Formats: sequence, C-alpha cells, structure tokens
Amino acid sequence: MKDIYPASPEWRVSRWFNSEAPLSLGALRGKVVMVSAFQMLCPGCVSESLPQALRVREAFSEGDLAVVGLHTVFEHHEAMTPTSLAAFLHEYRITIPVGVDEANPAGPIPLTMQAYAMRGTPTTLLFDRSGRLRRNVFGHIPDLRLAADIMALVGETNLSGGSATTNESAVCTPEDCSDQTT
Amino acid sequence: MKDIYPASPEWRVSRWFNSEAPLSLGALRGKVVMVSAFQMLCPGCVSESLPQALRVREAFSEGDLAVVGLHTVFEHHEAMTPTSLAAFLHEYRITIPVGVDEANPAGPIPLTMQAYAMRGTPTTLLFDRSGRLRRNVFGHIPDLRLAADIMALVGETNLSGGSATTNESAVCTPEDCSDQTT
Amino acid sequence: MKDIYPASPEWRVSRWFNSEAPLSLGALRGKVVMVSAFQMLCPGCVSESLPQALRVREAFSEGDLAVVGLHTVFEHHEAMTPTSLAAFLHEYRITIPVGVDEANPAGPIPLTMQAYAMRGTPTTLLFDRSGRLRRNVFGHIPDLRLAADIMALVGETNLSGGSATTNESAVCTPEDCSDQTT
Amino acid sequence: MKDIYPASPEWRVSRWFNSEAPLSLGALRGKVVMVSAFQMLCPGCVSESLPQALRVREAFSEGDLAVVGLHTVFEHHEAMTPTSLAAFLHEYRITIPVGVDEANPAGPIPLTMQAYAMRGTPTTLLFDRSGRLRRNVFGHIPDLRLAADIMALVGETNLSGGSATTNESAVCTPEDCSDQTT
Repeated sequence: MKDIYPASPEWRVSRWFNSEAPLSLGALRGKVVMVSAFQMLCPGCVSESLPQALRVREAFSEGDLAVVGLHTVFEHHEAMTPTSLAAFLHEYRITIPVGVDEANPAGPIPLTMQAYAMRGTPTTLLFDRSGRLRRNVFGHIPDLRLAADIMALVGETNLSGGSATTNESAVCTPEDCSDQTT
Repeated sequence: MKDIYPASPEWRVSRWFNSEAPLSLGALRGKVVMVSAFQMLCPGCVSESLPQALRVREAFSEGDLAVVGLHTVFEHHEAMTPTSLAAFLHEYRITIPVGVDEANPAGPIPLTMQAYAMRGTPTTLLFDRSGRLRRNVFGHIPDLRLAADIMALVGETNLSGGSATTNESAVCTPEDCSDQTT
Repeated sequence: MKDIYPASPEWRVSRWFNSEAPLSLGALRGKVVMVSAFQMLCPGCVSESLPQALRVREAFSEGDLAVVGLHTVFEHHEAMTPTSLAAFLHEYRITIPVGVDEANPAGPIPLTMQAYAMRGTPTTLLFDRSGRLRRNVFGHIPDLRLAADIMALVGETNLSGGSATTNESAVCTPEDCSDQTT
Repeated sequence: MKDIYPASPEWRVSRWFNSEAPLSLGALRGKVVMVSAFQMLCPGCVSESLPQALRVREAFSEGDLAVVGLHTVFEHHEAMTPTSLAAFLHEYRITIPVGVDEANPAGPIPLTMQAYAMRGTPTTLLFDRSGRLRRNVFGHIPDLRLAADIMALVGETNLSGGSATTNESAVCTPEDCSDQTT
C-alpha cells in the first residue's frame, strides 16, 4: 500500500520536565503519540486539556500510547518562563513529560508550534505508530471522540486516513483567549 | 481461530419506546451493540449513564454501533410503570430506542437482567459484531474507557477477549441505591 | 409602619411526606419559609432546585428558616402519582417535608400552584416571618442570590420590599420543559 | 453597646492592579469588605475562590460590599512575580481590584498574610462596615454560607459576633497544596 501520509518533522524542545532524558518522536516510533500543547496561563488548558491528558495517560497502556505535554508559549513570554512552568507543573501535579517548545528567534511563535501549523492552545496532536501526524485539533475534544481516535490509531494495521475536527471553545490564539471557563 | 465466546441469549422486552418495530440482538448482528440498562428512579442512571448513552449515540456511526436503552426495573415496580417511563423519556429527551425488560413472574428481577446476571443499575453491556456479550459493567464507566472498549470491538477482525471493569459509585442494587449524586 | 404586603393564602396539600403531621404556613409564622415547588420528572428540579433545597436546609438554622418541598404536578399526572413520588423521594434521599399540591377538579394546574400564580417548575417561594409571600421565582436561582434573599428576610425587623428575579433555564411550564441539563 | 471587636490593621500592598488608585481598608469604611487572598498557581484559588469572588462582585451592590483580591505569595516567589500576575489577571478576566501583598524582608510569608494570621490560600476575609475582621476562612466556602455571612454583615445595626468556619479542601499552605481539583 502506498504511504499517503507525509513524514512529520521532529518537535523542537529546549528543555524537558518530568523526563530523565530528552524525548523524540523518532524514538517513540512504534507507539501512538499524543501531544498536548498548552500554555500555563491558558484557562482552557488548565481546566480541560491538561486534566484530560492525565486521564488519557491513566486509561491507555504505556506500551500502546505515549502522552507528552508541550509548552507552546506564543504570548506573555516573560510571564511563562521555565521557572514559572516548573512551579505550575508542581502545583498542578502534572506528571507526564513536558517539553518547552523552542523559542523562535524570528518571532513570538515557537518552532514546533510553527512547524505543525498549530493555531493556538490547547491543541492536541496524534501521531500514528509510524510517527506521522494524523490529528491536529485546536480546542476541546470530548473524551469519547479522543479515545475513539486514539484507539483507531492503536488498532491500525494498514494506513488509512482521517480528518481533524475542531472545537474552538475556551482557546487561546496569538490574538486572544476566548470563552474562558471562569 | 476458535470461537472463545459463548453465544449470548436474546434480550426479553415486553414493550419498546422510540422504535417503530421491536429490536433484537440477532437482527443487529454485524454491528457492535451497547445496551444501557437503567431504572428511571436510579439517580446515577439519570445523571450519568443515560446522558453518556446519548453522547455515545452522537459520537459513533449508526453503521458501526447500535445504542439501546433497557428499563430493568427490580424495585419500586409500581412507581416505574411504562406510563411513568413514557413521561420520563419525554421530559429527559431520551431519543434512543428503549425496551422494557420483561417482568419475571417468579420474582422482582426482570428476565433480561437475570439472564445477563446484571448486579443492579446502571449497567452497560457491550456485544461484539457477532452478538456475543463482551463487557458487562456495573456502575459508572469513564468516557475514555467506554470509547476505547467500543472502538476495540468496532475494529475487531479476529476475536480476542477482555475483562469487565466496574465502578460502583452512584449505583442501585436490589438492596439499595448508594452514593447518590445530589 | 404600614403593612405593605398582602396576607398570603394557605397552601393546599392533599398529603405529606417526611412529616409526622401536616404543615401549615400559619403554624410556621415567626420563621422565614422557603417552598421549593417541583415535579419529580422535571429535569431542572432533579438536577438543580431539589439539591439546592437540601443545601439550604443544611446551611440555615431550623429556628430561622423552614424549608418545604411542594409537588406541583401540572402535566403527566398519571406518571407522577404519590406512589411514584414516594419512591422518588426515597431514591434521591429527599429528607425535607414534601407536600402534594392538591389536585384541581377544574383543570390540570393544582390549587396551590394556581393560588400563588406559579408559572411552572422549579419555582422557589420565600415567605417572611409574618407569612407573606415575598419572592416568587421561576427557574434557577444562584446560591449567592438565594442566600442573600433568605438572609434579608431572616434579618428583617421592619418591612421593606423586594422584587422577584427569574432565570428560566431548565424549567418546565404547562407548555413544555426546556433546556434540559442532560 | 460595647465594642467587642478589635480594630483590624491595614493591609500592606506593594502594587495594585485593576485600580486607578491604592485602596485602603480605612477608605472603605462604611461598606462590608471581602478580601479574597490567593496565589496565581494555587489550583483551588484558580478553579474555585477567584470565580466565586467574581460571582460575589456580580451578586451584591458596590454600595454595600467591596470585593478585593490579594496576591499573598508565600512560595515559588520567583514564579509568581507581578509580571506573571499581570498576564494571569488578563487571561483569566479577573477584573476586581487586586493588590500584591507586600514582601516580608524577614521571610517567605508576606506582611498582610502574616498580620492577619492566614494559614494559606485560598483565604477569605470579611470585614464589617467598621473595618473590623469578622471572618477569616481558610479553604472553600460554599456560596450559600458566604452569602449568608456577607448579608449578616450588610444588615448589621448592632454588633454581634460569629465564628470562622473552614473547609480545607484544595488549599495551599506554606507546606504544600493538597486535594487539587484536576
């Protein structure tokens, strides 16, 4: 069968938390990989997508699925430094590995966010067992939908596609955060 | 491959709501079937398992999955008659097909509940595409877990097993309802 | 000071639950009285107003405030009989006194509901220490607002007025139930 | 009647947000004052006490009640600087006036937190119309209880007392944060 998905670029991470060694997409080949891209001051990330990432970590086997956080800071850079992030991860009991998306010398959007064309936070990425990006969803995904998408990739033996769905409530874009869950 | 699951008996239903014709497990062969067994006065059913069944109906294709409600009254029979059930289904906007589990002349536990050895309500049953019971879960199932179980059955080509998990919060048994979500 | 509030009529109750003797507005003179009017098959009552009535019962002194439920059935009468109500109160652990609003031989709206001009369920009534109706609110009231209204009446020494506020989400009227919280 | 409450000390604030001029307890004399002490990385503050403070602001008249936030940083000082706080207030749409509790040259506990003997965050303080501290509650307060306490102070003509109640779920102390609401 012809390979219809393009190879995905590696993520670019300047620092890792909750991981003894750097993680790479290449080294996770063979597992499905979920990346939860967030900002520590994005309300929808704090109330919804990060708790969901922790639930996903509990619900699926580590042998089938890797769950990785990515701190994609594209605004208030001086307020969301690695020092602040470290305190945030500690206080919110975020125990999954979290990488800091590498700063872009040319602008506010960090390199991985730019490479994967993320529109804001929260964004959830799903990579198949071959390391190819198969879902790129901006905004909240219901648990039922996310689990179904993960399982479809976990169960894949041949390579068939899918399309990304988006729910743009409680999100942050480079323009603004909207529909905060206060 | 050898068939390791026993054939499941048909459900026994005395009356259907939201369905023009009676439904049978046999006629649904080829689809995964989810049965949400409930009582209209079971608090955990009203607040959790029935809304979940409606979410599942929305999230999965009708071609892959049938979602069926089953009113398994094992207590307060005189308070949960078909007349009361009809009003309940109307007021709570329950639009999936709902069958009334057939009364047992020999005791309070209705026939399908007894045949499938359900322990109380809510109970979720999952049947594979061959009509064999593969999950029998008493109590709440998180959306992530339920969706993963459904997708595993949807994606099955060979027949491998699984075990039922149970969360017994907010449940009714023939003895009592507990941990109400008031 | 002149008495600016009209005397309120007694409620009309055909049967009491959770009370050894019938309750009357007259006999509760001296306390503030909160009446939570509901139907057992009104989704907004089950998920919001009855749990709120139980929280109010816990939060305020019995010496200052009486909390009374009133089953004002105006639709599906055959589905919400006293037999069904008894099972409902048991399963949902409703422990406050609950009266059954007296049926109206002339129509579907029961007598107390009609006398107090309630628009549907849930409705919350607040009577002052002199037994006069001071709030008549159809729909959900936030806890902060309700507690402030109760305390204003608890603290009253002279008689000053107020106006009812209404939030009509998740309500039932003689026409329909809307915005169900499923 | 004899004055049984001691005068309360002024708060000590190094910087104000959302206020054109510094606020003082003295200048608010005549109103009830609610202070919501928080840390921007305290999960219970973000999910519960700050949204509650905004609800309280909406529910009560500005003529009766002043609502003030106080950023009482006692840990991770380098992660919760005024720069980070400014971004946090912006992203979470916190529009009430917020003061930064003045740093203590002698230790990690800031001056106002120390002066009022707060045990951690969130803490809610209620001052009566005479500027005397009447409630000092560590942890979550249900809306019903908080509104009743506020109304009791709003309605006060003579001076009677009360006792602080505490609910220590989802709180941060100088030792740790516990029972996070993830």
